[in-house]
Amino acid sequence: MNHEPPGRGDARVPHVVIVGGGFGGLWTTRALASADVRITLIDRRNHHLFQPLLYQVATAGLSSPDIAAPLRHILRSQRNVEVRLGEVVGLDPAARRVALADGDSIGYDYLLLASGAAHAYFGHDDWAGDAPGLKTLDDALHIRRRLLLAFERAEASDDEAERAAWLSFAVVGGGPTGVELAGTLAEIARKTLRREFRRIDPAQAKVRLIEAGPRVLSSFPEELSEKARKQLQKLGVEVVTGTPVNAIDERGYTLGDTFVPARTVVWAAGVAASKLGALLDAPRDRAGRVQVLPDLSVPGHPEIFVAGDLASVQQDGKPVPGVAPAAKQMGAHVARAIRDRIAGRSTAPFRYKDYGNLATIGRMAAVVDVHGFKLSGLLAWWFWLAAHVFFLIGFRNRVIVLINWAWAYWSYQRHARIILGDREE
Amino acid sequence: MNHEPPGRGDARVPHVVIVGGGFGGLWTTRALASADVRITLIDRRNHHLFQPLLYQVATAGLSSPDIAAPLRHILRSQRNVEVRLGEVVGLDPAARRVALADGDSIGYDYLLLASGAAHAYFGHDDWAGDAPGLKTLDDALHIRRRLLLAFERAEASDDEAERAAWLSFAVVGGGPTGVELAGTLAEIARKTLRREFRRIDPAQAKVRLIEAGPRVLSSFPEELSEKARKQLQKLGVEVVTGTPVNAIDERGYTLGDTFVPARTVVWAAGVAASKLGALLDAPRDRAGRVQVLPDLSVPGHPEIFVAGDLASVQQDGKPVPGVAPAAKQMGAHVARAIRDRIAGRSTAPFRYKDYGNLATIGRMAAVVDVHGFKLSGLLAWWFWLAAHVFFLIGFRNRVIVLINWAWAYWSYQRHARIILGDREE
Repeated sequence: MNHEPPGRGDARVPHVVIVGGGFGGLWTTRALASADVRITLIDRRNHHLFQPLLYQVATAGLSSPDIAAPLRHILRSQRNVEVRLGEVVGLDPAARRVALADGDSIGYDYLLLASGAAHAYFGHDDWAGDAPGLKTLDDALHIRRRLLLAFERAEASDDEAERAAWLSFAVVGGGPTGVELAGTLAEIARKTLRREFRRIDPAQAKVRLIEAGPRVLSSFPEELSEKARKQLQKLGVEVVTGTPVNAIDERGYTLGDTFVPARTVVWAAGVAASKLGALLDAPRDRAGRVQVLPDLSVPGHPEIFVAGDLASVQQDGKPVPGVAPAAKQMGAHVARAIRDRIAGRSTAPFRYKDYGNLATIGRMAAVVDVHGFKLSGLLAWWFWLAAHVFFLIGFRNRVIVLINWAWAYWSYQRHARIILGDREE
Repeated sequence: MNHEPPGRGDARVPHVVIVGGGFGGLWTTRALASADVRITLIDRRNHHLFQPLLYQVATAGLSSPDIAAPLRHILRSQRNVEVRLGEVVGLDPAARRVALADGDSIGYDYLLLASGAAHAYFGHDDWAGDAPGLKTLDDALHIRRRLLLAFERAEASDDEAERAAWLSFAVVGGGPTGVELAGTLAEIARKTLRREFRRIDPAQAKVRLIEAGPRVLSSFPEELSEKARKQLQKLGVEVVTGTPVNAIDERGYTLGDTFVPARTVVWAAGVAASKLGALLDAPRDRAGRVQVLPDLSVPGHPEIFVAGDLASVQQDGKPVPGVAPAAKQMGAHVARAIRDRIAGRSTAPFRYKDYGNLATIGRMAAVVDVHGFKLSGLLAWWFWLAAHVFFLIGFRNRVIVLINWAWAYWSYQRHARIILGDREE
């Protein structure tokens, strides 16, 4: 499909091409619903994913459709947008066209790159096979499969050392994702699976959270980091800080100098910007994020914008974090900037409003930091629950997730403990 | 793990090995809960699957965990059973051992083979890649992916003929599975996706149900076959009977002598018994099912039983159908037979109680035949709904499925329209 780009000053409706249907891209799309523009939203996948709850799918607490909704469905009533399933592989800023993997090219008047971030292994991409990361639904299902299979393999094993290795789990990275994964994994081992095995005692599983820096949740105030550490330890997670992981293979990992046998390692330690950033001739930071101007456009290209995890924005000397609210706010700002461009107005610089930080630790514990107002424990957990359900897209999704959690809360059970993925075997 | 087989006349508790955690194997397991036996239940997958609703996962109406539950979870309170994730690849009746794919072997006093059925392509196994069948959750997700992608490809296409091929769907096989798939697919095209595309009109999709025999639902009374055909046509399905499919490849299929371009063909036309049947030196029918004695044991091997789709049982001159209620009843009968053997009693022959036949056609239509009491249309659909929800395992699953269906009924939406499976791409 080849769209002719409208010329400059043409009376035709401006064409806005948005790459990425995550929080950034979707928020720009919706904010332009009543603008006199034509929008093409391109994504490699057919759904918008509520990433903050991805760890729930990875730990079998929710199923994929609970936290995702088809982009076409979300945008069905917005007549000025067309959704295109496809992958952008090339960009020609002079001709104002993006090239897709299937051979098509699409012309634009305005372009937004909001393709997010992917896992980064600090130069050790060979670790990816043995230590999967958690960015997409397929990642989550892969991790889920490995977690559940580990207990099955332990049960079937006759060898003491082999069984111990299958019951050893490590989560690398002490940010919110790592904390959430480790806490939930410990709960699964100690509570959910408790009566279900005959040869092994799942509660004997060793769950270790490894953070190279001095504390977990480093983006939170120190006292909340400390509370989180305590809550994790109470759940049975061994928290190791100040030591990096130096090697990972299928038998285990090396912590500092020591090799630790562990058949399941999950990577939550680093993200790098989507490769699409490299398509622009624009300055990028060490993680590959595009260093945008204050209005979120690319230096030298006022018609190209970047939002979300792909953008590097400094505010008051600190980088704007790669979190969902930031992506949404950037998305809304880009929509304003595009409207301004069309109307010939100037655009105010982007200002990120930090509404606070939340991370859940386990069934009934979390830490919350909102404008210095700190919560931890059960109250924080209710706050976290309310916020996440509220921000889920789709009434039905909210009802289902609430029911699943009410059930899980009541029974410690996890709804989605199904091992899939053996079609090729 | 090697289990020593208890010797004949040994005071040790008899060891019952059950291969397959479907309706047959699971029902035998549960019926032996209070028997003085030790049970090992082996399955290639970790979950029990409610197969009658598999077509719902394939058409994105339900998600995998809604219709499946982990075997360990179902059996967690039954102390005399151990669940083993594994695949049986060999059998030594003389030594009374089964061999697993991972190298272990397990000894038994009594063995039940209940490994079910798989797709059969009547000698055309090469069709399997282009016309996936529907027997497992992975099958269902694969079909779901193909269905959803077909509309995406049509939307992206500029070529008239290519678009038409992407919007052409065929379901081969007019039994309940085929009827359910075809009816639901037509609903998706005409209702669910109606407003969500800009270049194509999903309602223009051609959905064809192809049955080689004279009528669909041939196991139902003629008048219900006719009602089903009418309801399908009302939904927009083109029903073709009396013509076989003679070839299938990735471009389409050949109906009689005519080639029809269609990028999505789903196979619901034939099943053959699990290959495990071949491990026994016992008579088998054309579909590979083991021809068992009236008490469901294998001729010459009173300690080996077969139940479910793997068993061929004649009753009053007709074969017992490969349906869930039959598998459950056989499973219960095998448990009785094992208890009888242990107690030195004889066993009554198995009698299948046919409670009737149901098939759903679409959102609000079905056909029901219970002891000659026939229903069709909306009333039948309510009956079908109640029966299926009632027989689902797990209270939470029932609640979730009911909510999903209430939502779908109200809104025509389908909950699980998520395309997964692109991790390798």
